[in-house]
Amino acid sequence: MNKSVQQIVLGMVALTMVGAAVAADPKPEDEIRYRQSGFNVIARSFGILGAIAKGERPYDQALAVKSANIVEALSTLPFGSFGPGTDVGTHKTDPKVWKENAKFKEIAEKFQFEAAKLPAAAKDIDTLKIQVGAVGKTCKACHDDFRIKDKK
Amino acid sequence: MNKSVQQIVLGMVALTMVGAAVAADPKPEDEIRYRQSGFNVIARSFGILGAIAKGERPYDQALAVKSANIVEALSTLPFGSFGPGTDVGTHKTDPKVWKENAKFKEIAEKFQFEAAKLPAAAKDIDTLKIQVGAVGKTCKACHDDFRIKDKK
Repeated sequence: MNKSVQQIVLGMVALTMVGAAVAADPKPEDEIRYRQSGFNVIARSFGILGAIAKGERPYDQALAVKSANIVEALSTLPFGSFGPGTDVGTHKTDPKVWKENAKFKEIAEKFQFEAAKLPAAAKDIDTLKIQVGAVGKTCKACHDDFRIKDKK
Repeated sequence: MNKSVQQIVLGMVALTMVGAAVAADPKPEDEIRYRQSGFNVIARSFGILGAIAKGERPYDQALAVKSANIVEALSTLPFGSFGPGTDVGTHKTDPKVWKENAKFKEIAEKFQFEAAKLPAAAKDIDTLKIQVGAVGKTCKACHDDFRIKDKK
């Protein structure tokens, strides 16, 4: 076997372990976990940008652009995992996501539209502040209407 | 208030909700959840690439490049969340991560090195197959040694 073929064969063996992740028909619990994972990663990167925008953290252009790229790259992913049957189990998704799905999708699209502008905006502290505000508004709009609040 | 200032103020209000994500001293359970989230998002995108490489899914250049960008962008993130005290609770991290930390870091760096080549490789099905194999080997190496196996 030449080196390339060897790489492929070894890789195929390694890939068996990620098989579950590519199942054609993912289980509802995997979908719920996936959307939660996506939002969790987005939240931390957006949190860094928020801290910079609020002056709680110094402006670091490389970190800001990296964080913005992550928010942008992940902005569509979790929204593909609110399909039929994914309202079961433990999660904070309000049933309105399915009952008022057009409104939910509209806010998701607004978030994605504003998130797409983040990487360019992150190159400058002043444009970053404005764009963090614009993205933050879409996060809040969705959380207000479509996320079950933490019980006190 | 002009429009920019208004955006910032509204954004600051919205940002209060992501405050927990930017805490200077995150809780161990948040760190564990964050690294799990990161790996979960990586696994799904890498799973798409794996399915393409194995011929289980047709090659779609745009999807391949997008998935490769996600794996690359997230490749460093979870590894920042294996700090002291994050060995508590429910997770699959083998204690060897802390006992044999240099080896763990070496595999993580190999993964990041190979993941960085994925976006360019994804532009062509043949180079993608080779690079998926190279990345998959690093995933497997780490899972073999540093992840607790599922109980049967």
